[in-house]
Amino acid sequence: MARQFPEDGQRRVVIEGVYPAVEGGRYPVKRILSDVVECSCDLLSDGHDSLAGRMLFRRSGDHAWQSSPLVARGNDRWSATFHASEIGRWEITFEAWIDAYTTWRLGTQKKRDAGQDIQVELAMGERLLAQAASRTDGELSTLLSNAADATGDRLRSADARLDAAVCDDVVRAMALAPNLANVTRYDPVLSIVVDPPLARFSAWYELFPRSCGAHGKHGTLGDVVRRLDYVAHMGFDVLYVPPIHPIGYAFRKGPNNVLTAGPNDPGSPWAIGAKEGGHKAIHPDLGTLDDFRRLVREARARKIELALDIAFQVSPDHPYVREHPNWFFQRPDGTIQYAENPPKKYQDVYPFDFECEDWRGLWAELLDVFLFWVGEGVRVFRVDNPHTKSLRFWQWCIDEIKAVHPEVIFLAEAFTRPNLMYALAKRGFSQSYTYFTWRDTKAEFEAYLCELTEPGISDFYRPNFWPNTPDILPEHLQHGGRPMFVLRLLLAATLSSNYGIYGPAFELMEHVARAGSEEYIDNEKFQLRSWDLDRDDSLREVITRVNAIRRGNPAFQQARQLTFHRTSSDALLCFSKRAEDNVVLVVANMDVYRAHSGFVYLDLGALGIHERESFQVHDLMSDARYHWNGSRNPISLDPQRSPVSVFVVRKKIRSEHDFEYYQ
Amino acid sequence: MARQFPEDGQRRVVIEGVYPAVEGGRYPVKRILSDVVECSCDLLSDGHDSLAGRMLFRRSGDHAWQSSPLVARGNDRWSATFHASEIGRWEITFEAWIDAYTTWRLGTQKKRDAGQDIQVELAMGERLLAQAASRTDGELSTLLSNAADATGDRLRSADARLDAAVCDDVVRAMALAPNLANVTRYDPVLSIVVDPPLARFSAWYELFPRSCGAHGKHGTLGDVVRRLDYVAHMGFDVLYVPPIHPIGYAFRKGPNNVLTAGPNDPGSPWAIGAKEGGHKAIHPDLGTLDDFRRLVREARARKIELALDIAFQVSPDHPYVREHPNWFFQRPDGTIQYAENPPKKYQDVYPFDFECEDWRGLWAELLDVFLFWVGEGVRVFRVDNPHTKSLRFWQWCIDEIKAVHPEVIFLAEAFTRPNLMYALAKRGFSQSYTYFTWRDTKAEFEAYLCELTEPGISDFYRPNFWPNTPDILPEHLQHGGRPMFVLRLLLAATLSSNYGIYGPAFELMEHVARAGSEEYIDNEKFQLRSWDLDRDDSLREVITRVNAIRRGNPAFQQARQLTFHRTSSDALLCFSKRAEDNVVLVVANMDVYRAHSGFVYLDLGALGIHERESFQVHDLMSDARYHWNGSRNPISLDPQRSPVSVFVVRKKIRSEHDFEYYQ
Repeated sequence: MARQFPEDGQRRVVIEGVYPAVEGGRYPVKRILSDVVECSCDLLSDGHDSLAGRMLFRRSGDHAWQSSPLVARGNDRWSATFHASEIGRWEITFEAWIDAYTTWRLGTQKKRDAGQDIQVELAMGERLLAQAASRTDGELSTLLSNAADATGDRLRSADARLDAAVCDDVVRAMALAPNLANVTRYDPVLSIVVDPPLARFSAWYELFPRSCGAHGKHGTLGDVVRRLDYVAHMGFDVLYVPPIHPIGYAFRKGPNNVLTAGPNDPGSPWAIGAKEGGHKAIHPDLGTLDDFRRLVREARARKIELALDIAFQVSPDHPYVREHPNWFFQRPDGTIQYAENPPKKYQDVYPFDFECEDWRGLWAELLDVFLFWVGEGVRVFRVDNPHTKSLRFWQWCIDEIKAVHPEVIFLAEAFTRPNLMYALAKRGFSQSYTYFTWRDTKAEFEAYLCELTEPGISDFYRPNFWPNTPDILPEHLQHGGRPMFVLRLLLAATLSSNYGIYGPAFELMEHVARAGSEEYIDNEKFQLRSWDLDRDDSLREVITRVNAIRRGNPAFQQARQLTFHRTSSDALLCFSKRAEDNVVLVVANMDVYRAHSGFVYLDLGALGIHERESFQVHDLMSDARYHWNGSRNPISLDPQRSPVSVFVVRKKIRSEHDFEYYQ
Repeated sequence: MARQFPEDGQRRVVIEGVYPAVEGGRYPVKRILSDVVECSCDLLSDGHDSLAGRMLFRRSGDHAWQSSPLVARGNDRWSATFHASEIGRWEITFEAWIDAYTTWRLGTQKKRDAGQDIQVELAMGERLLAQAASRTDGELSTLLSNAADATGDRLRSADARLDAAVCDDVVRAMALAPNLANVTRYDPVLSIVVDPPLARFSAWYELFPRSCGAHGKHGTLGDVVRRLDYVAHMGFDVLYVPPIHPIGYAFRKGPNNVLTAGPNDPGSPWAIGAKEGGHKAIHPDLGTLDDFRRLVREARARKIELALDIAFQVSPDHPYVREHPNWFFQRPDGTIQYAENPPKKYQDVYPFDFECEDWRGLWAELLDVFLFWVGEGVRVFRVDNPHTKSLRFWQWCIDEIKAVHPEVIFLAEAFTRPNLMYALAKRGFSQSYTYFTWRDTKAEFEAYLCELTEPGISDFYRPNFWPNTPDILPEHLQHGGRPMFVLRLLLAATLSSNYGIYGPAFELMEHVARAGSEEYIDNEKFQLRSWDLDRDDSLREVITRVNAIRRGNPAFQQARQLTFHRTSSDALLCFSKRAEDNVVLVVANMDVYRAHSGFVYLDLGALGIHERESFQVHDLMSDARYHWNGSRNPISLDPQRSPVSVFVVRKKIRSEHDFEYYQ
């Protein structure tokens, strides 16, 4: 009976458990420019032979692979790193093989040490070296060929012959001349998206341009330029503005979301499109494309990226409705289906029909909206409700943009079920909104951050924590007063490397909601607001300090490593972060209505502190310094002064002159 | 610019997180005949539309799929089951789509309930029903066509028209007529190997046939037949014998593994092959092929499967050495490489070279060894040291055998690193030896069993627990006396659904090791032994009782569900298992040198007991019955009487006549 055999039957090494890989490699992993990317796998083979392997890596699109040798980490685990030296998509895979030379070398040395005869072994060594010489050329081949001759030279002693075969030069040379006849290559290739640093570490400030005007007048892009120094001084690096396009008139909403707008009501910026244009146009009251270009330029001069809000929905007045009625769902009566969540109707907005016949035309146009604004200098997009548009569209659209503009960053504004939020991140969103806004207790934060920082999630999902948004004034901010605002700010800014606030509502502690809701009263979504930025009680200086602390401490600039520490009270949340030498420790009083004193029980190992070492903790908020010792240390937090201590942890260093100081 | 679009751009549903799948579907999952196999996945789509889906399943090799509807389990999780009605390989995958009819039905009902006009909705419903009618034929089509007409009938009231569209008949009919134009199919197909029940639930008894002779004579297969009733009475269902082939003379080992054998020493059964034949021959002193056939037949008559030991290595006298010298590694001096672990040499054994040129010839012959014995009626193989043979070979070999003989079971005797043991199981071994033999403390058992019962492992790895083997007399058995033998027996037999002992050494409590080793002195591997089976202190009756308990309680017949319960002492291990109504609870005193009393703190939920319900625990070892109440209950175990209580847990049932009894 003729048997079928696999092609790779002689390959004795198998490669398993590859890392990093999202869903077994179906989706790319995310990393940041300049990361040293650690990749690992299990190498397994029968018997006791020595194995060797390498990680292969390349920029996507390159033909040639670069390689880095795999190093054994114990228990069959091997790892290697590569330097993510350019943004864009990279590919990695693994190769491994039986290392016959090392197997022979270690075995023969043991036999020699045990006093056994090694004549036959030396002949085997000669053969291995000669084969390696014939696989190579130039100096390497000469070296190996000479080593083969010396190993086979029966006029020399066995010891001298073995030494010739196993000296350091030869070991190094043999590592360069592996026998790859039966190499195992891992399949499939794994993808890694390397983003600019802003994707991992960013502080966002959201404002409504139309509320930036003086004396209650409709603000302009020029007014936003004049607001830039205010934003830059606080230390933000992304300025995010709601949609800046013409706003529809049909079914326009009035203040506080009433169904009929007055003649002077500006409408919601998310009801996009009017006769003046759609997603590629600028609302005439805001200014011109030239004004826009100037805003992008002036912001960048202050190290601020302008983030546009892309909301793929249209008002009934949008030009698309006339030009491409086939992109929308047609009702049997010939009308276009408006948005609804029965029995609620949102007649001011038409959704696109991603199952329409002309889906390719629709996709191409939506992609073109992004590319238009990228062409005008935009590098950051906040995408409105991406979970109500096709997941396959996002994967394609983001891939298409990043293939040409790998520096572009996308924030997914999806407040929906966890699996769907993760599914969007897997398909390319660089950052994602989270449930931070509704997490209240210590237990909730510990559980949530453990989830977000586990590698299976943090490899593709980058959280962006928001204490408030124009859509959400959470209940705790309605009632907690200034201490609660400070608490939520500091939790967002220290738990997550990406965070943002909706201002000036946040720094001015706007806290009145429409009755029974988590919606701001007199919401800027439906009307202009005028803000007194210079109010004495503004949180502006607290925010400035927090952002400075984040910039000064690399531990706050990553979201993948975080350790919670035990405390004596459910009111006291304690966590630390580390980035090489920089160690920060945050203790928060979660109960802003009263002072709490107690103890933290530190996991000293997580802080890099030895058991009996004393250390300094320096509260970067109050500038107080404490000398701590061992695991158990006292803490006292009065929310009226500050609900949170943000410590940098400094080890004691003993100088050569026996003078002690803190690093 | 001409854009590239994916082919599946209109498919709005994505399928993720499929279960069960080993390494994302690279290896098959294992299940048992008659299992109701639960399969699940996440279905995700944009927006709020209703989704629907189905699990597809088929026997491998079939063209047509059967299907089972996916049921929503919350948080985007969906599941379906199929009945594993035949042993062999099965395939599953998933399909999902937007359910436009259900979306329309639920939305329209809400609008009607809110008093909104639904004329346009009714027209949409008419359209959906008419489209479904045109997708189907026969009665189904007629029913849907009539429903479409009634829904569109403007002479009727809106309520009547809606009722016509959403009545139960129509809902059922529409579920049978889904619009699959934009169906998403999960790729790849996942494999499930369905094994006979013996793969999950088995009690193994190992003996050396040559020690079964009367009066110290070399035993025969006929002697083993005479031993069958002894084995069957104890309740074992697998009788495993070490290799039965001719034994080599070259470098034959003597008693206690000495390097030179005397002229009458029988040699190790694992030094396979002599002039009388190799892996397909029977040692002349054991008998003939006819004797072997009789043994298989007589065993099966007692519901015992004979398990052969397949050790793919040869003595220098094996016919393969002469006929196929190219299957072995040739040393430069023309000799064949014997087994070694430098500086140790095992010159009585040659390993195969799985990298040899004629690897296909080698593989085909090794496969043929299995097929030969399958042809002689063998259904169970214990494979010796599979981790020293190519992993790719095993995958191919087991697949080839099971494609034709899906009833065959393979036990992997690999005592090596955990990843390699798992890798062998992934490649097809039905059961695996484990580290049970070296686990001693309560903490060690809790950690190990948690690992083995987690779905990611238990989906492909079926443990088989052995208190002893001819290779291992663990230290605790050397010193712990009868209580330790009973403890290890009961732990193996209750923690694992598959277990085995090497007898009669076990039931006769053989406990003397070669000094400083975990090897039996006067090991049967190298000499004949004569056992007095009728000794008064034999554990035979304890073993008989344990096997009867396992057969009587389905909870012991599976290895995937196990709950540990807290106790008042590190000496007291407590766990329970459940299989529907059958609940068993095991409490073991791990310290066999003294009696321990204390408390168990039961997780009542895991036992299916309500908080205030009283229940009976019936110790099936001692036949004592206790009335327990609540979580905390006393326990006292004197190892001299019995180190383990094996309780069946019975709820109190109140009869109609107010008479209470236990189920």
